[in-house]
Amino acid sequence: MRGGGAMARLAVAARAFSASASAGAGAGGVSMVQGASRGIGLEFVRQLLRRSEQGRVVATCRAPDAAAELQKLKDEHAPGRLTVLPLDVTDETTIQAAAASVRETHGSLDLLINSTGILSIPDVIQPETTLSKVEKSSLMLAYEVNAVGPILVIKHMWPLLKVGGCSKTGRGFSLVANMSARVSSIADNGLGGWHSYRASKTALNQLTKTVSVEFGRKDNIACILLHPGTVDTDLSRPFQRNVPKDKLFMREFSVQKLLSVIDNVKKSDNGKFFAWDGQEIPW
Amino acid sequence: MRGGGAMARLAVAARAFSASASAGAGAGGVSMVQGASRGIGLEFVRQLLRRSEQGRVVATCRAPDAAAELQKLKDEHAPGRLTVLPLDVTDETTIQAAAASVRETHGSLDLLINSTGILSIPDVIQPETTLSKVEKSSLMLAYEVNAVGPILVIKHMWPLLKVGGCSKTGRGFSLVANMSARVSSIADNGLGGWHSYRASKTALNQLTKTVSVEFGRKDNIACILLHPGTVDTDLSRPFQRNVPKDKLFMREFSVQKLLSVIDNVKKSDNGKFFAWDGQEIPW
Repeated sequence: MRGGGAMARLAVAARAFSASASAGAGAGGVSMVQGASRGIGLEFVRQLLRRSEQGRVVATCRAPDAAAELQKLKDEHAPGRLTVLPLDVTDETTIQAAAASVRETHGSLDLLINSTGILSIPDVIQPETTLSKVEKSSLMLAYEVNAVGPILVIKHMWPLLKVGGCSKTGRGFSLVANMSARVSSIADNGLGGWHSYRASKTALNQLTKTVSVEFGRKDNIACILLHPGTVDTDLSRPFQRNVPKDKLFMREFSVQKLLSVIDNVKKSDNGKFFAWDGQEIPW
Repeated sequence: MRGGGAMARLAVAARAFSASASAGAGAGGVSMVQGASRGIGLEFVRQLLRRSEQGRVVATCRAPDAAAELQKLKDEHAPGRLTVLPLDVTDETTIQAAAASVRETHGSLDLLINSTGILSIPDVIQPETTLSKVEKSSLMLAYEVNAVGPILVIKHMWPLLKVGGCSKTGRGFSLVANMSARVSSIADNGLGGWHSYRASKTALNQLTKTVSVEFGRKDNIACILLHPGTVDTDLSRPFQRNVPKDKLFMREFSVQKLLSVIDNVKKSDNGKFFAWDGQEIPW
């Protein structure tokens, strides 16, 4: 599974976007992308690996062995640049194990991107179109995956983030970026619906803000929230019908923009919520 | 248990506050107070019963037989004015049963006040002072009780609220008032901590806003959120030490203020978040 690294690396270098060739503030150091087997998380891994020869990436997902795209990326890059670890946000023991593994291998974390999210799974959870379709099981599951999961990941990566941030990145502090979504904005909620997803992401916003207050007081760490736009991924596919064509982003574009936001974050942005274009989103 | 009603009613009339003697917009009709065995919920029941001779009140709590104060209020008022029903927000079947009972007895609801809330229970849940003390079980429990519970109550009372609101109240629409708290405001979160409680109430704010959008489109119902101030109740008792004396309200005062907000709500206030003094709270 791991052969042909040199050839593959050449091929990747040839394909690399010119836009991502210039290394951003977070180009070096150790980055973790949690929820990396597909969608936006996978694209973050791809672009983080491409943008410098130094940066190391830890990608987590529930089943590394089944994550063909991640294994392919691993083969395409130099040994040690990409580590793939099992992590299920609904199982705290796997979060602890991943933290222990990163501590042993890398010793610190400079960037943590929480990219998991649940919106719909046939026969399990569906975005609600009316209050009468709201089910307790959906509310609880969305909260567990979208709000509780990322916060537990931050809790266990906290010691690693404390010792990161200063060494090989130009940033000068460690950064946590949680993937939220514009529909989590209460102020912006003019359409209603999607009760479980909205509430879980709004709670994630509050939890991120709460954590940012403590980090701002004690640590050299900042926390931000990101809205990726409506991106063409498995998550959004069933709901793309009403999205105007120019508002449906390719993953490459959205992640390029989000990395640009991440590169330009200042310590004083701790606790803020940014869209892909750098605009702040109201709570 | 129901003797001495006439004498008790006289005694109550003599004790009535002058401020609550004038019947507000919601004085008639049928009001439900969910989470009424103590604290702010119990005080709502007391004042709603006092303010008119016509209004009927449905008080719900987990164990009506153990709710001595509610049983006492029932004895003090005319038969039929106060109904006490079992309802546990974590058990949806009890919510459905309560809705069926209200449908049979009253046929409609004009006002629904969701007043349950969990903040701390020794050995079960404690407001967190740091991220390292955040536990998944606390996050999930607070969400289940503070966010999911009230929304499921609204879901099942919705048919009753649809047919209420026009008859015996001067309001002209049915009203749902969910007890939130200022600490749920993300914008206002400068202190951090209390992760589980904050996140659950912030999610309640988003769920209430989401529901308000649908009500505004289809129904003659409005939904609001209320912040009662820091009130001297069992919930706040362990945390009153740092509250300035003039900022710690008696239940009577807080509920009098909240009922004044409820009385003055306009249909266009649907989806808003008000403090006890009528000031809007930012998200």
